[in-house]
Amino acid sequence: MKIYFVTTNTGKYEEVKKMLSEHEIIRKDMTYPEIQADTLEEVADFGMEFLSKKLDGKIMLEDSGLFINALNGFPGVYSAYVFKSIGNEGIIKLMAGIEDRRAYFKSVIAFYDGKVRFFEGECNGSISENVRGESGFGYDPIFIPEGEARTFGEMEKEEKNRYSHRGMAVLKLKKFLRV
Amino acid sequence: MKIYFVTTNTGKYEEVKKMLSEHEIIRKDMTYPEIQADTLEEVADFGMEFLSKKLDGKIMLEDSGLFINALNGFPGVYSAYVFKSIGNEGIIKLMAGIEDRRAYFKSVIAFYDGKVRFFEGECNGSISENVRGESGFGYDPIFIPEGEARTFGEMEKEEKNRYSHRGMAVLKLKKFLRV
Repeated sequence: MKIYFVTTNTGKYEEVKKMLSEHEIIRKDMTYPEIQADTLEEVADFGMEFLSKKLDGKIMLEDSGLFINALNGFPGVYSAYVFKSIGNEGIIKLMAGIEDRRAYFKSVIAFYDGKVRFFEGECNGSISENVRGESGFGYDPIFIPEGEARTFGEMEKEEKNRYSHRGMAVLKLKKFLRV
Repeated sequence: MKIYFVTTNTGKYEEVKKMLSEHEIIRKDMTYPEIQADTLEEVADFGMEFLSKKLDGKIMLEDSGLFINALNGFPGVYSAYVFKSIGNEGIIKLMAGIEDRRAYFKSVIAFYDGKVRFFEGECNGSISENVRGESGFGYDPIFIPEGEARTFGEMEKEEKNRYSHRGMAVLKLKKFLRV
């Protein structure tokens, strides 16, 4: 099946293309409006509404975020912006003295084939006491997945991928496409 | 002149109506998509694009935010969301140990009369060392306007209004409408 994957992120495209190798995943390096909303689904839905009018065919997009329990889900759908402005050091500061360090990464894929469908993946874990490791990107050096002592920043890519929230969402889409 | 003011905020409506008393300001209690963007102007522009297709006539909307220099403009266009999630205590924590406490409130009004025009107001100041005062709302208890020792949270409404970023934006619109 031919699917347009709309993303400006080359790494994300390569990762998804590999997982969906039985399909023809064509990258569309274009942007779409991301709204301010409470959930990733709302952001993805609005974006897909826009894209489905621009592109002819099957379309997918992916959005993800880090949700910290004690901060009421912050930075959530604004993860990219928050990372750019206050970074990992900012999150560590905000979490100073907070005992409940639970957090999760969440990924949402919106897939359009005349109708929008959502596929989700989550990775539970906690926020570390300080920034650790150089691997990965974004919040990886402050996120410890459940059952681990190391942050994603301290793991090899292959190890990290075992926990991947995005990978899980892609797998669900893969299953759906098979039916 | 008859102008639709699109806002879900009654206080904001009353304030603007009073300042533009020579015009007929009609409140439209409806929402519009707010995008994730770097500037208030982009958010207002996108919102107005949407509204100009829904409403027939002259339209205005207002958006504002707190921009902290040392935090690269955080919380900026996401001020409402950040307030809801980490609140004033979160900002104070983020600013712990930071010497440069400069910040400003900014208000942008978008006005549509066949074409979108922007009117802006700013209020310079700094972030207090802790939350002070009960007046106002939002970030008022942590913002000290230039030339003052008290936060907005420690001032009466009339006093605070002398510094009002929104008031300044409304005045610019008022002048424009007079011509």
